[in-house]
Amino acid sequence: MKDDEHVQERAEQTRRSLLEAAASLFDERGYAGTSISDITARSGHTSGAIYFHYTSKERLALAVVQEHFATWPPLIDRHTGLHVPALEQLVRLSFAVARAFRDDIVVRAGARLWTERSLIAAPFPPPFIGWIDAVGAMLERAHGEGELAAHVDPLPAARTIVCAFFGLHTVSEALDGRRLVEDHLAELWTLLLPSLRAAPGHPGHTAELLAAARGA
Amino acid sequence: MKDDEHVQERAEQTRRSLLEAAASLFDERGYAGTSISDITARSGHTSGAIYFHYTSKERLALAVVQEHFATWPPLIDRHTGLHVPALEQLVRLSFAVARAFRDDIVVRAGARLWTERSLIAAPFPPPFIGWIDAVGAMLERAHGEGELAAHVDPLPAARTIVCAFFGLHTVSEALDGRRLVEDHLAELWTLLLPSLRAAPGHPGHTAELLAAARGA
Repeated sequence: MKDDEHVQERAEQTRRSLLEAAASLFDERGYAGTSISDITARSGHTSGAIYFHYTSKERLALAVVQEHFATWPPLIDRHTGLHVPALEQLVRLSFAVARAFRDDIVVRAGARLWTERSLIAAPFPPPFIGWIDAVGAMLERAHGEGELAAHVDPLPAARTIVCAFFGLHTVSEALDGRRLVEDHLAELWTLLLPSLRAAPGHPGHTAELLAAARGA
Repeated sequence: MKDDEHVQERAEQTRRSLLEAAASLFDERGYAGTSISDITARSGHTSGAIYFHYTSKERLALAVVQEHFATWPPLIDRHTGLHVPALEQLVRLSFAVARAFRDDIVVRAGARLWTERSLIAAPFPPPFIGWIDAVGAMLERAHGEGELAAHVDPLPAARTIVCAFFGLHTVSEALDGRRLVEDHLAELWTLLLPSLRAAPGHPGHTAELLAAARGA
């Protein structure tokens, strides 16, 4: 029994180390630019280990994308549990996601593989819908708490926010390698919050909220 | 002399027909999924004609991307020449661009090739910067004409609008094949205009403006 656990633990470590080596290569070179032998060289594991744990390069790419998608539910839960108004939860969540896109190799690789999905014979999960639903639910709560301006309809607003957020990542990646992504996100909220909010609050309020979200 | 003109005209027709056949294939199948022989089959020209006019598949892809980029300056000029306020010019321009992304095969193909740029050994023009400058100049004029709210800084606002607009295309393409792109764009402006405008105007104003821009 003890031995079995040990074997399972080692297998899990090997899977994780292969996943991370593959993710860092997919992030740097893309799917087509990464070979099985690149992954063996970077991970220190054999190609036999790759085929044993993932069966193919396609399935390894799919595992990276699934791991990217699996990042979000716990992050969303953590932010919707914060004891702050719903709009502030949303702003804080957006900065946490932006930092993950900038710093987390599996998130970055999953995003790149997703844009290259037409090259990869694997069933990728549908994108954006989960985000539109999650942001929509947060705006519904903001609406229920009287935070939203009268003209704001939660679901279309959620779709617009998700579009703006993902566009910001594409632009920031192309123009500054995501270095300035938090600055661009602060600009986005500076433009959107006065329109979303029922009461604009005192002039420094948006700036304070953004400073707190960046530091969070 | 007459003969030379005739030859030149025919060469131009061949170039254009190759470009459009390649664009429709790149749009459907992507760069990696399109071969020279696919392009000969669709265009009815020989592979010799492709190599003569474009030297390689890379250069043909680059020509499609350049043609995509060349679509915008005349469209921007036409809209900044309209006798309407600057913000309305911008809204109308955004719908014209959205329709081009939905309906113009060279624009669509150029956009797809751009997302696949890491696979293509050709010097693609830098993206987004021209758009951020153009939208920034329109917002500067809106500011000069007293149309913008006090908290709106034209350049960061331009960057946010360009990010939101391109994100909207990515999302609309992934979720509905761009069929609903004009609806999503109307939602974007419904959220942004109350924040951008110095005076929100009467309640139906945004709806009227959007209806006019969609029909334009």
